[in-house]
Amino acid sequence: MHSDNLSKQINFIKEIDKIKYIQRRTKLFNSNRHENDAEHSWHLAMMAIVLAEHSNTPIDILKVIKMVLIHDIVEIDTGDVFLHDTTLNHTNTEAETIAAKRIFGLLPQEQAEELISIWEEFEAGQTNEAKFAKSMDRFEPLLQNASNQGGTWAEYNVSYDKVFDTAKGIKKGSETIWNYTENLLNESVEQGIL
Amino acid sequence: MHSDNLSKQINFIKEIDKIKYIQRRTKLFNSNRHENDAEHSWHLAMMAIVLAEHSNTPIDILKVIKMVLIHDIVEIDTGDVFLHDTTLNHTNTEAETIAAKRIFGLLPQEQAEELISIWEEFEAGQTNEAKFAKSMDRFEPLLQNASNQGGTWAEYNVSYDKVFDTAKGIKKGSETIWNYTENLLNESVEQGIL
Repeated sequence: MHSDNLSKQINFIKEIDKIKYIQRRTKLFNSNRHENDAEHSWHLAMMAIVLAEHSNTPIDILKVIKMVLIHDIVEIDTGDVFLHDTTLNHTNTEAETIAAKRIFGLLPQEQAEELISIWEEFEAGQTNEAKFAKSMDRFEPLLQNASNQGGTWAEYNVSYDKVFDTAKGIKKGSETIWNYTENLLNESVEQGIL
Repeated sequence: MHSDNLSKQINFIKEIDKIKYIQRRTKLFNSNRHENDAEHSWHLAMMAIVLAEHSNTPIDILKVIKMVLIHDIVEIDTGDVFLHDTTLNHTNTEAETIAAKRIFGLLPQEQAEELISIWEEFEAGQTNEAKFAKSMDRFEPLLQNASNQGGTWAEYNVSYDKVFDTAKGIKKGSETIWNYTENLLNESVEQGIL
């Protein structure tokens, strides 16, 4: 039983290596090199660990970490969707659900169900953990763009209103980080990079 | 106080971005592209989550995840040390301790102390959590090399005895994964890639 589980788990471990090839639009801090989903997910987990005290509500940090570590795994099948893409939306699309079932489905059934459920909870964005995890996912590209002379804001000509509108989801996870973000966006406007 | 903490935490979050530039010797699965420390750390965290049931002893999985997420952050200052390097050893060197103090020291004091302590616990390898975390760190490159026609074993002409000797640390964390590893090494010898 144990070794039967192990071979399924190793198949999953090999499969998710592919996330390292999924390029995001955003770039590393102070850099021209695009970030990939594995790097992004690692960074969000570190952010969740060090920023947890700023959550609006008490959170189960282990669940938040699992959420951010797995949240982009479906992109192995569906590819990265740019945050400011207006034709594709970011709701839990059918293609993503099929991807989640295929990839997490490589695991033993109980684990597959747990990770699919955590991923769905993140996507729905309703629980305290999902709100905080999503605020990390929104906050990282803002920090990157602000440190990169505007980064994807400048490159794709994204307006202040659009950035503000997407960023304000941070408030649901953390008022403190939202206050910081508002200042960061104002400073970016003053510097002419947004 | 909160916002004072926040600016320190954000300095840390920006600093650790540099881990994405630290290249390891090992390559991605079925690939010629070298892995970097952020990707490696993400993968170890995922492995710890899905393989936890194989630990020899009950473990605090949150602590294990923190260990593997942060274990290579010191390499921002010290660089990657190849597992089979015979001139540099992998004990808790003075340079690594200085790096840990500098980088984790960017955080508010209490957090800095917590992460330094977790990193030291990992390095010492004595607790159940450290043993399991280290077994993940040993296991990933074995899976990669076996899927890459020998990978760094072939490239750096590392002998079976050397690989076996390093790999056997896995046993301290998980007998089950160690059994799998022994088979994997034997199969690699049969295939002529080790």
